[in-house]
Amino acid sequence: MSETKPALVRASLNGYRWEEVPNLPYKDNASAPFKAVSRQVLFADPQLGCELRYFEVEPGGYSSLERHEHVHAVMILRGRGLCLVGEQVSEVQPHDLVNVPGWTWHQFRATGDEPLGFLCLVNQVRDKPQLPTEEELSELKSNPVVAAFLSS
Amino acid sequence: MSETKPALVRASLNGYRWEEVPNLPYKDNASAPFKAVSRQVLFADPQLGCELRYFEVEPGGYSSLERHEHVHAVMILRGRGLCLVGEQVSEVQPHDLVNVPGWTWHQFRATGDEPLGFLCLVNQVRDKPQLPTEEELSELKSNPVVAAFLSS
Repeated sequence: MSETKPALVRASLNGYRWEEVPNLPYKDNASAPFKAVSRQVLFADPQLGCELRYFEVEPGGYSSLERHEHVHAVMILRGRGLCLVGEQVSEVQPHDLVNVPGWTWHQFRATGDEPLGFLCLVNQVRDKPQLPTEEELSELKSNPVVAAFLSS
Repeated sequence: MSETKPALVRASLNGYRWEEVPNLPYKDNASAPFKAVSRQVLFADPQLGCELRYFEVEPGGYSSLERHEHVHAVMILRGRGLCLVGEQVSEVQPHDLVNVPGWTWHQFRATGDEPLGFLCLVNQVRDKPQLPTEEELSELKSNPVVAAFLSS
Protein backbone atom coordinates (compact mmCIF):
# COMPACT_ATOMS: atom_id res chain seq x y z
CA MET A 1 0.00 0.00 0.00
CA SER A 2 1.42 3.37 -0.94
CA GLU A 3 1.73 6.23 1.58
CA THR A 4 -0.77 8.29 -0.40
CA LYS A 5 -4.17 8.53 1.26
CA PRO A 6 -7.00 7.13 -0.87
CA ALA A 7 -9.75 9.44 -2.13
CA LEU A 8 -12.77 9.81 0.17
CA VAL A 9 -14.91 7.99 -2.39
CA ARG A 10 -13.55 5.41 -4.85
CA ALA A 11 -16.10 4.30 -7.40
CA SER A 12 -16.75 0.69 -8.30
CA LEU A 13 -15.82 0.12 -11.94
CA ASN A 14 -17.21 -2.51 -14.25
CA GLY A 15 -16.07 -6.02 -13.55
CA TYR A 16 -15.26 -5.83 -9.85
CA ARG A 17 -12.48 -3.30 -10.08
CA TRP A 18 -12.19 0.00 -8.20
CA GLU A 19 -10.78 3.44 -8.79
CA GLU A 20 -7.21 3.75 -7.44
CA VAL A 21 -7.06 0.05 -6.54
CA PRO A 22 -4.40 -1.94 -8.41
CA ASN A 23 -5.19 -5.50 -9.41
CA LEU A 24 -2.35 -7.53 -7.92
CA PRO A 25 -1.01 -11.04 -8.22
CA TYR A 26 -2.59 -13.29 -5.60
CA LYS A 27 0.76 -14.23 -4.04
CA ASP A 28 3.96 -12.21 -4.09
CA ASN A 29 5.83 -15.41 -4.56
CA ALA A 30 4.36 -18.33 -6.41
CA SER A 31 5.67 -21.06 -4.14
CA ALA A 32 2.16 -22.08 -3.07
CA PRO A 33 0.01 -24.02 -5.52
CA PHE A 34 -3.02 -22.01 -6.66
CA LYS A 35 -4.80 -21.32 -9.92
CA ALA A 36 -6.19 -18.15 -11.52
CA VAL A 37 -6.57 -15.86 -8.51
CA SER A 38 -6.20 -12.07 -8.31
CA ARG A 39 -6.04 -9.75 -5.30
CA GLN A 40 -7.11 -6.16 -4.68
CA VAL A 41 -6.48 -4.33 -1.40
CA LEU A 42 -9.57 -2.19 -0.73
CA PHE A 43 -8.80 -0.80 2.72
CA ALA A 44 -5.52 -0.84 4.63
CA ASP A 45 -5.60 2.24 6.85
CA PRO A 46 -3.40 1.44 9.90
CA GLN A 47 -6.06 3.03 12.12
CA LEU A 48 -8.54 0.28 11.17
CA GLY A 49 -6.47 -2.48 12.76
CA CYS A 50 -7.29 -4.72 9.81
CA GLU A 51 -7.21 -4.92 6.04
CA LEU A 52 -10.01 -5.65 3.59
CA ARG A 53 -8.99 -7.42 0.40
CA TYR A 54 -11.02 -8.61 -2.59
CA PHE A 55 -9.96 -11.90 -4.20
CA GLU A 56 -11.24 -13.30 -7.43
CA VAL A 57 -10.88 -16.90 -8.52
CA GLU A 58 -11.55 -17.65 -12.20
CA PRO A 59 -13.93 -20.51 -13.10
CA GLY A 60 -12.16 -23.79 -12.38
CA GLY A 61 -9.56 -21.96 -10.27
CA TYR A 62 -8.73 -22.28 -6.58
CA SER A 63 -6.87 -20.47 -3.82
CA SER A 64 -3.94 -22.18 -2.14
CA LEU A 65 -4.67 -24.80 0.50
CA GLU A 66 -3.09 -23.31 3.60
CA ARG A 67 -3.37 -22.54 7.29
CA HIS A 68 -1.99 -19.90 9.66
CA GLU A 69 -2.41 -18.52 13.14
CA HIS A 70 -4.46 -15.50 12.04
CA VAL A 71 -8.18 -15.72 11.29
CA HIS A 72 -10.02 -14.85 8.09
CA ALA A 73 -13.49 -13.30 7.88
CA VAL A 74 -14.91 -13.74 4.39
CA MET A 75 -17.98 -12.46 2.55
CA ILE A 76 -18.73 -13.85 -0.90
CA LEU A 77 -19.40 -11.03 -3.38
CA ARG A 78 -19.95 -12.77 -6.72
CA GLY A 79 -20.19 -16.20 -8.32
CA ARG A 80 -20.50 -19.59 -6.77
CA GLY A 81 -18.01 -21.93 -5.22
CA LEU A 82 -17.04 -24.46 -2.66
CA CYS A 83 -14.98 -23.73 0.40
CA LEU A 84 -13.07 -26.03 2.66
CA VAL A 85 -12.68 -24.94 6.29
CA GLY A 86 -11.12 -27.60 8.47
CA GLU A 87 -12.87 -30.75 7.28
CA GLN A 88 -16.12 -28.97 6.35
CA VAL A 89 -16.92 -28.44 2.68
CA SER A 90 -19.67 -25.87 1.97
CA GLU A 91 -21.32 -24.41 -1.10
CA VAL A 92 -21.08 -20.63 -1.08
CA GLN A 93 -22.85 -17.87 -2.98
CA PRO A 94 -23.09 -14.09 -2.81
CA HIS A 95 -23.20 -12.54 0.66
CA ASP A 96 -22.57 -15.80 2.50
CA LEU A 97 -20.18 -15.35 5.44
CA VAL A 98 -17.23 -17.67 6.12
CA ASN A 99 -15.15 -17.82 9.32
CA VAL A 100 -11.73 -19.37 9.06
CA PRO A 101 -10.43 -19.91 12.62
CA GLY A 102 -6.69 -19.89 13.36
CA TRP A 103 -4.60 -22.90 12.29
CA THR A 104 -7.42 -24.26 10.13
CA TRP A 105 -6.82 -25.65 6.62
CA HIS A 106 -8.86 -23.74 4.05
CA GLN A 107 -9.30 -23.35 0.33
CA PHE A 108 -11.80 -21.68 -2.03
CA ARG A 109 -12.78 -23.15 -5.40
CA ALA A 110 -14.81 -21.44 -8.14
CA THR A 111 -17.57 -23.61 -9.54
CA GLY A 112 -19.90 -22.51 -12.32
CA ASP A 113 -19.26 -20.11 -15.18
CA GLU A 114 -18.60 -16.89 -13.32
CA PRO A 115 -15.54 -15.97 -11.25
CA LEU A 116 -15.84 -16.48 -7.50
CA GLY A 117 -15.18 -13.11 -5.87
CA PHE A 118 -14.95 -12.60 -2.12
CA LEU A 119 -13.99 -10.03 0.48
CA CYS A 120 -11.44 -11.23 3.03
CA LEU A 121 -10.81 -9.40 6.26
CA VAL A 122 -7.56 -9.95 8.19
CA ASN A 123 -5.72 -8.43 11.12
CA GLN A 124 -3.01 -6.00 10.04
CA VAL A 125 -0.51 -8.04 12.06
CA ARG A 126 -0.44 -11.60 10.83
CA ASP A 127 1.77 -14.61 10.29
CA LYS A 128 2.73 -16.21 7.00
CA PRO A 129 0.59 -19.10 5.71
CA GLN A 130 1.83 -22.67 5.99
CA LEU A 131 1.33 -25.20 3.22
CA PRO A 132 0.52 -28.83 4.03
CA THR A 133 3.34 -31.35 4.09
CA GLU A 134 2.86 -34.56 2.10
CA GLU A 135 1.90 -36.25 5.35
CA GLU A 136 -0.65 -33.59 6.27
CA LEU A 137 -2.11 -33.75 2.77
CA SER A 138 -2.51 -37.52 3.05
CA GLU A 139 -4.20 -37.08 6.38
CA LEU A 140 -6.59 -34.49 4.93
CA LYS A 141 -7.39 -36.82 2.03
CA SER A 142 -8.22 -39.67 4.39
CA ASN A 143 -11.55 -37.87 4.78
CA PRO A 144 -13.46 -38.73 1.56
CA VAL A 145 -15.38 -35.42 1.61
CA VAL A 146 -12.12 -33.48 1.72
CA ALA A 147 -10.54 -35.75 -0.90
CA ALA A 148 -13.48 -35.16 -3.26
CA PHE A 149 -13.21 -31.41 -2.71
CA LEU A 150 -9.45 -31.33 -3.37
CA SER A 151 -9.81 -33.26 -6.60
CA SER A 152 -12.89 -31.31 -7.81
CA MET B 1 -21.93 -10.23 20.47
CA SER B 2 -22.46 -13.42 22.41
CA GLU B 3 -19.60 -15.61 23.58
CA THR B 4 -20.74 -18.41 21.27
CA LYS B 5 -18.53 -18.83 18.22
CA PRO B 6 -20.37 -18.31 14.94
CA ALA B 7 -20.76 -21.24 12.53
CA LEU B 8 -17.99 -21.65 9.96
CA VAL B 9 -20.42 -20.71 7.20
CA ARG B 10 -23.47 -18.48 7.73
CA ALA B 11 -25.73 -18.30 4.69
CA SER B 12 -27.08 -15.09 3.26
CA LEU B 13 -30.87 -15.08 3.59
CA ASN B 14 -33.34 -13.20 1.44
CA GLY B 15 -33.41 -9.46 1.99
CA TYR B 16 -29.90 -8.83 3.27
CA ARG B 17 -30.15 -10.85 6.43
CA TRP B 18 -27.83 -13.64 7.58
CA GLU B 19 -28.08 -16.87 9.54
CA GLU B 20 -27.29 -16.33 13.23
CA VAL B 21 -27.05 -12.54 12.80
CA PRO B 22 -29.62 -10.54 14.78
CA ASN B 23 -31.06 -7.40 13.21
CA LEU B 24 -30.36 -4.69 15.79
CA PRO B 25 -31.45 -1.13 16.39
CA TYR B 26 -29.03 1.29 14.75
CA LYS B 27 -28.20 3.03 18.03
CA ASP B 28 -28.44 1.60 21.53
CA ASN B 29 -29.75 4.93 22.69
CA ALA B 30 -31.80 7.16 20.45
CA SER B 31 -30.23 10.46 21.48
CA ALA B 32 -28.80 11.07 18.00
CA PRO B 33 -31.15 12.14 15.23
CA PHE B 34 -31.43 9.48 12.52
CA LYS B 35 -34.21 7.87 10.51
CA ALA B 36 -35.00 4.29 9.53
CA VAL B 37 -31.64 2.58 9.99
CA SER B 38 -30.90 -1.00 11.10
CA ARG B 39 -27.62 -2.66 12.09
CA GLN B 40 -26.26 -6.20 11.83
CA VAL B 41 -22.86 -7.24 13.20
CA LEU B 42 -21.36 -9.69 10.69
CA PHE B 43 -17.89 -10.25 12.15
CA ALA B 44 -16.57 -9.29 15.58
CA ASP B 45 -13.89 -11.88 16.37
CA PRO B 46 -11.41 -10.17 18.75
CA GLN B 47 -8.56 -11.71 16.75
CA LEU B 48 -9.53 -9.64 13.70
CA GLY B 49 -8.77 -6.32 15.39
CA CYS B 50 -11.87 -4.85 13.77
CA GLU B 51 -15.60 -5.35 13.34
CA LEU B 52 -17.65 -5.58 10.17
CA ARG B 53 -21.20 -4.31 10.41
CA TYR B 54 -23.98 -4.04 7.81
CA PHE B 55 -26.26 -1.00 8.01
CA GLU B 56 -29.43 -0.48 6.08
CA VAL B 57 -31.14 2.86 5.61
CA GLU B 58 -34.74 2.79 4.33
CA PRO B 59 -35.69 4.99 1.36
CA GLY B 60 -35.81 8.59 2.55
CA GLY B 61 -33.89 7.65 5.70
CA TYR B 62 -30.48 8.79 6.92
CA SER B 63 -27.79 7.86 9.44
CA SER B 64 -26.91 10.32 12.18
CA LEU B 65 -24.66 13.24 11.31
CA GLU B 66 -21.64 12.66 13.54
CA ARG B 67 -17.88 12.56 13.90
CA HIS B 68 -15.38 10.67 16.05
CA GLU B 69 -11.70 9.94 16.34
CA HIS B 70 -11.93 6.47 14.77
CA VAL B 71 -12.10 5.94 11.03
CA HIS B 72 -14.77 4.18 8.97
CA ALA B 73 -14.16 2.08 5.87
CA VAL B 74 -17.40 1.60 3.95
CA MET B 75 -18.49 -0.50 0.97
CA ILE B 76 -21.96 0.07 -0.46
CA LEU B 77 -23.79 -3.25 -0.91
CA ARG B 78 -27.25 -2.29 -2.21
CA GLY B 79 -29.32 0.70 -3.30
CA ARG B 80 -28.34 4.25 -4.04
CA GLY B 81 -27.59 7.18 -1.86
CA LEU B 82 -25.67 10.29 -1.07
CA CYS B 83 -22.90 10.50 1.47
CA LEU B 84 -21.40 13.48 3.18
CA VAL B 85 -17.74 13.17 4.25
CA GLY B 86 -16.33 16.43 5.54
CA GLU B 87 -17.70 18.94 3.06
CA GLN B 88 -17.79 16.50 0.14
CA VAL B 89 -21.15 15.16 -1.03
CA SER B 90 -20.97 12.09 -3.30
CA GLU B 91 -23.45 9.84 -5.02
CA VAL B 92 -22.86 6.21 -4.08
CA GLN B 93 -23.98 2.89 -5.52
CA PRO B 94 -23.15 -0.78 -5.02
CA HIS B 95 -19.51 -1.63 -4.38
CA ASP B 96 -18.34 1.98 -4.13
CA LEU B 97 -15.79 2.49 -1.34
CA VAL B 98 -15.97 5.35 1.17
CA ASN B 99 -13.23 6.43 3.58
CA VAL B 100 -14.30 8.46 6.59
CA PRO B 101 -11.13 9.87 8.21
CA GLY B 102 -11.00 10.60 11.94
CA TRP B 103 -12.88 13.65 13.27
CA THR B 104 -14.75 14.11 9.99
CA TRP B 105 -18.49 14.87 9.85
CA HIS B 106 -20.35 12.21 7.90
CA GLN B 107 -23.85 11.05 7.06
CA PHE B 108 -25.46 8.58 4.63
CA ARG B 109 -28.82 9.20 2.97
CA ALA B 110 -30.87 6.67 0.97
CA THR B 111 -32.15 8.05 -2.32
CA GLY B 112 -34.32 6.09 -4.73
CA ASP B 113 -36.81 3.33 -4.02
CA GLU B 114 -34.55 0.67 -2.53
CA PRO B 115 -32.89 0.68 0.89
CA LEU B 116 -29.28 1.84 0.99
CA GLY B 117 -27.23 -1.00 2.48
CA PHE B 118 -23.55 -0.77 3.29
CA LEU B 119 -20.75 -2.60 5.05
CA CYS B 120 -18.87 -0.53 7.63
CA LEU B 121 -15.52 -1.58 9.01
CA VAL B 122 -14.27 -0.14 12.33
CA ASN B 123 -11.47 -0.76 14.78
CA GLN B 124 -12.56 -2.88 17.74
CA VAL B 125 -11.33 -0.11 20.06
CA ARG B 126 -13.13 3.12 19.28
CA ASP B 127 -14.50 6.30 20.80
CA LYS B 128 -18.14 7.38 20.99
CA PRO B 129 -19.51 9.57 18.19
CA GLN B 130 -20.00 13.30 18.74
CA LEU B 131 -23.05 15.14 17.43
CA PRO B 132 -22.71 18.67 16.06
CA THR B 133 -23.52 21.59 18.35
CA GLU B 134 -25.90 24.24 17.00
CA GLU B 135 -22.87 26.34 16.16
CA GLU B 136 -21.12 23.50 14.30
CA LEU B 137 -24.32 22.74 12.40
CA SER B 138 -24.60 26.39 11.33
CA GLU B 139 -21.00 26.32 10.20
CA LEU B 140 -21.61 23.14 8.18
CA LYS B 141 -24.69 24.71 6.58
CA SER B 142 -22.72 27.77 5.55
CA ASN B 143 -21.52 25.57 2.68
CA PRO B 144 -24.47 25.48 0.25
CA VAL B 145 -23.57 21.98 -0.98
CA VAL B 146 -23.68 20.64 2.58
CA ALA B 147 -26.85 22.62 3.36
CA ALA B 148 -28.58 21.13 0.29
CA PHE B 149 -27.46 17.62 1.34
CA LEU B 150 -28.70 18.03 4.91
CA SER B 151 -32.12 19.23 3.78
CA SER B 152 -32.46 16.61 1.01
